Amino acid sequence: MPLMKSWVDSANAPDHPFPLNNLPYGVFSHAGTEERCGVAIGDMILDMAAAEEAGLVQVADEPVFDLPYWNDFMDLGAEAWDTLRTRLITLLAVGSAERAAVEPHLVPMSEAAMHMPIAVSEYTDFYAGRNHAFNVGTMFRGPENALPPNWLHIPIGYNGRASSVVVSGTDIRRPWGQLKSPDHDLPAFLPCRRFDIELEMGAIVGTATDGPISVQEADDNIFGYVLLNDWSARDIQAWEYQPLGPFQAKATATSISPWIVTKAALEPFRTDTPEREFELLDHIKDVGPMLYDIDLAVTMAPEGKEATTITRTNYNQMYYSAPQQLAHHSTSGCPMNVGDLLGSGTISGPTKPERGSLLELSWGGKEPLTLNTGETRTFIEDGDTLTLSGEAKGDGYTIGFGTCTGTVLPALEDPYKR
Amino acid sequence: MPLMKSWVDSANAPDHPFPLNNLPYGVFSHAGTEERCGVAIGDMILDMAAAEEAGLVQVADEPVFDLPYWNDFMDLGAEAWDTLRTRLITLLAVGSAERAAVEPHLVPMSEAAMHMPIAVSEYTDFYAGRNHAFNVGTMFRGPENALPPNWLHIPIGYNGRASSVVVSGTDIRRPWGQLKSPDHDLPAFLPCRRFDIELEMGAIVGTATDGPISVQEADDNIFGYVLLNDWSARDIQAWEYQPLGPFQAKATATSISPWIVTKAALEPFRTDTPEREFELLDHIKDVGPMLYDIDLAVTMAPEGKEATTITRTNYNQMYYSAPQQLAHHSTSGCPMNVGDLLGSGTISGPTKPERGSLLELSWGGKEPLTLNTGETRTFIEDGDTLTLSGEAKGDGYTIGFGTCTGTVLPALEDPYKR
Repeated sequence: MPLMKSWVDSANAPDHPFPLNNLPYGVFSHAGTEERCGVAIGDMILDMAAAEEAGLVQVADEPVFDLPYWNDFMDLGAEAWDTLRTRLITLLAVGSAERAAVEPHLVPMSEAAMHMPIAVSEYTDFYAGRNHAFNVGTMFRGPENALPPNWLHIPIGYNGRASSVVVSGTDIRRPWGQLKSPDHDLPAFLPCRRFDIELEMGAIVGTATDGPISVQEADDNIFGYVLLNDWSARDIQAWEYQPLGPFQAKATATSISPWIVTKAALEPFRTDTPEREFELLDHIKDVGPMLYDIDLAVTMAPEGKEATTITRTNYNQMYYSAPQQLAHHSTSGCPMNVGDLLGSGTISGPTKPERGSLLELSWGGKEPLTLNTGETRTFIEDGDTLTLSGEAKGDGYTIGFGTCTGTVLPALEDPYKR
Repeated sequence: MPLMKSWVDSANAPDHPFPLNNLPYGVFSHAGTEERCGVAIGDMILDMAAAEEAGLVQVADEPVFDLPYWNDFMDLGAEAWDTLRTRLITLLAVGSAERAAVEPHLVPMSEAAMHMPIAVSEYTDFYAGRNHAFNVGTMFRGPENALPPNWLHIPIGYNGRASSVVVSGTDIRRPWGQLKSPDHDLPAFLPCRRFDIELEMGAIVGTATDGPISVQEADDNIFGYVLLNDWSARDIQAWEYQPLGPFQAKATATSISPWIVTKAALEPFRTDTPEREFELLDHIKDVGPMLYDIDLAVTMAPEGKEATTITRTNYNQMYYSAPQQLAHHSTSGCPMNVGDLLGSGTISGPTKPERGSLLELSWGGKEPLTLNTGETRTFIEDGDTLTLSGEAKGDGYTIGFGTCTGTVLPALEDPYKR
C-alpha cells in the first residue's frame, strides 16, 4: 500500500511517524482542556472530543471521546473500529470536502501533553522471545538447559500489575527492595543496583470474552499495539522469583508509548512466526501471519548528554504472536476484558547488538557497554534516559508509535519518609 | 468483649455468624431491586441503599450504598469506616430509639441473592503458610529443600487475575489446559484431571497508596477479610509454572465469601505470627499481633450426597500476616488501590487433617481420602461441592463469614464450541 496523502502537509513526509496510513489513538490535554481522546495526523492531534461534539464523527449514542481513555470506544466492537478509521481517512485525506470543518479541531502536538491512552484493566507480561529466553536461560542455567521444557509448547507468561503502567515521559523512581548479594548469607533491604529495561511491544485487548478463544478470534479481539518498556529490578528479581515468578521486581513501573497503533494500520506489515521445533497444539497453532515487521530500537542518554543507540531489533523476532498469547491466556476460561494489556516479552534478535535488555547486552553485568559519550554501563544509572522507538516502513511512508521514554531518578533516601 | 445484644433476635444466638459484634458488609439483591450494599444482622440484611435514602446513615455528600460494590465507601477512609460501624451499632442495638425507622429496611437473608461485595481492582495471591509451603516443597523437591531460600525472609506472592474472582455460590467449570503427563514426552490439551482447592483468607485493601508503606500503615489500610478459595489446576500448574509462576492453572476462578468481615469486628481475635527462624528485616517486621484466631474448615460433598469435613485449621497458622504481605507488595513503589484483594496463601496446620488443599491431603494423589459416603477422592470430581467456612469464637458470640462454596461442573466437551 502506498502513502495516503493528507491535507495536513506534515503527515506526507516519508519518514513522518503519523501519516494518514497510521492514525494512532492517544489521550492528550492542552491549555485549558481536560484529558480527551485524540488522533495523531502529522504534527497535529485531531481533538476527537471536539470533533464528536461538532458532529464530524459519531460512533455511539453517547459521547465516547470526551474521556481520558479509549476503553469506551474499544467496547463498541470491531465494526465501530473500522467505521471510525474509514471516517477519519475521509475527513483527513487530500481533497476532503470537510477540511474547513475539521481544521479548527487540530491541536499542534508540540502544545499537547500526552496521557495514558487506556485505562489498563489488567496487565500480563509474556516471555515469548526465543533469543531473550535463551540468553537469560544460558546465564542462569547454562546453554543446555536454557529453555525450560514447556517453552517451545506454550507462551510462558505471568500477571503483572496494572496499577504500575505509566505513559511515556513519566519519570521512574529507582526502587528499594529486598535482595541478597551472592557474597552475603542474608538478604538486605536496599535500593536496586541492577535496574534494567525490557524492550517489548504491548497488545491491547479491545473485546471482552469469557471462555477459551481461538487464535483467530484473539487476533480479531486485539485493538492495537504500543511500545512497552517493562522496567526490571534484576537483583530483586533474582532473590524473589523462585518459585512463583517475578513480583516486586516488575512492579515499580511499566512504560507504554502514548499512541496506540491500530491493527488496521499495521495490516500491510504482517509477518509469520519463525519455524517451529515442535508443532504447536491446535489451541495456539498459527493460523496466518500475526507478527509484524516493526523495526525497534533503544537509546540510552546519561543525564544532560547525547543518546547512544544500544540495541536494534524487530518485532518479527517473537516466537509467539500476541494472538497466540491471548488465546493461551483464555484457555482456562479466564475472562479477558477491554483494556487488558499483554506485554510481548523482551524482544532480542540473534546477535549481541540486537538484545532487548541490559541484562543481555552486558551479559549479567560482566561486559559493560561503551556509550558514545565514552562512559560505560552495565545497568541503568541515576539520571539515565531510556527511549524505545518503533517503526514499520511502508511504500513511501512510515508507521511510528511515538517514543516510549523514561528517566530514572535516584532512589529515595528513606522510602518510608514522605 | 461479650455479645452485644441486638433487637434483631436471631443475631443474639451464641452460634449465629452475624451478631451485632460482626456487621459484615455484602452486596445483595432481592425481588425487584438492583444490586446494592447490605449489612448482615442475624438472619436479616439491612438494605443500606434504603437506609441511606431514608437518612438513617449518611457518610458522604453523594450516596455510596446504592451501588453494587463497597469500593466507594471504602474510599472514604478509615474514619468513615469507624463512623459507620458506630452508627450501625446504635441503630441495631437493643433499645435503639430508631428501631421503628430501621425495621422496614431489613430484608430476610433467605430471600436475598448475594453478589460480589467489591469491584476487585487487582488480585494478588501469596504463599505464606509455612506448613503448606513445606508440604508442597517436600513433594516437589524433598524435605531438605522444601522451603526456597527466600521463603523465611519475604512473603512470596504472585499477581493473580482479578477478572476471575467470583462470589461464593458461583459454579466452577472444570478447565481445559495444556499439560504433560509424566509418562508422555509431549504435552496435550486436555481437561484438568487434578483440580483442587486452596483454603485461604483474603484481605481487602481499603485505602490507596503510591509508594512503600510500613506494616502498621498496611494494617491501617486493610478494610476487612473474606474467605477465599483459590481453585487450582495442579496438572496445568506443574507444566506451566517454571520459570515465571502459576498462570492459567489459577485463572479459572477464585471464589470469595459474600461477606466482608471488618477489621473492627475481628479486633478481639488478633494473634501473633509464629516465632521466626530468621529475624525479619524492618520493612516487614511484626509490629503487633496482626493474624486472627479464626477457625477454618472445608467440606466436600459429592453431587446430591452428604458433605464430609476434609480439613480443619486456623488462620493463626500463617507465617506472614496480611499487613506484612501488603507492606511487602508496596516496597517497589507499586501503587495499591481500593479494592485490591490479597490472598493469604493456602492455610495448613501441622498435622494431616489440617491441610488446606487436596494436593496435600492426598499427598499428590497417592493417599486418597475416604468421605463419609464411603467414596474416595484424590482431587475434585465433577459435581463435587466444596465449601469453606470460618468463625472466630468470642465470649458468648461467633463472628462468621458466611460460607464460600462452589460446585465443579464437568469440562465442556469442546471448549471452542459456543
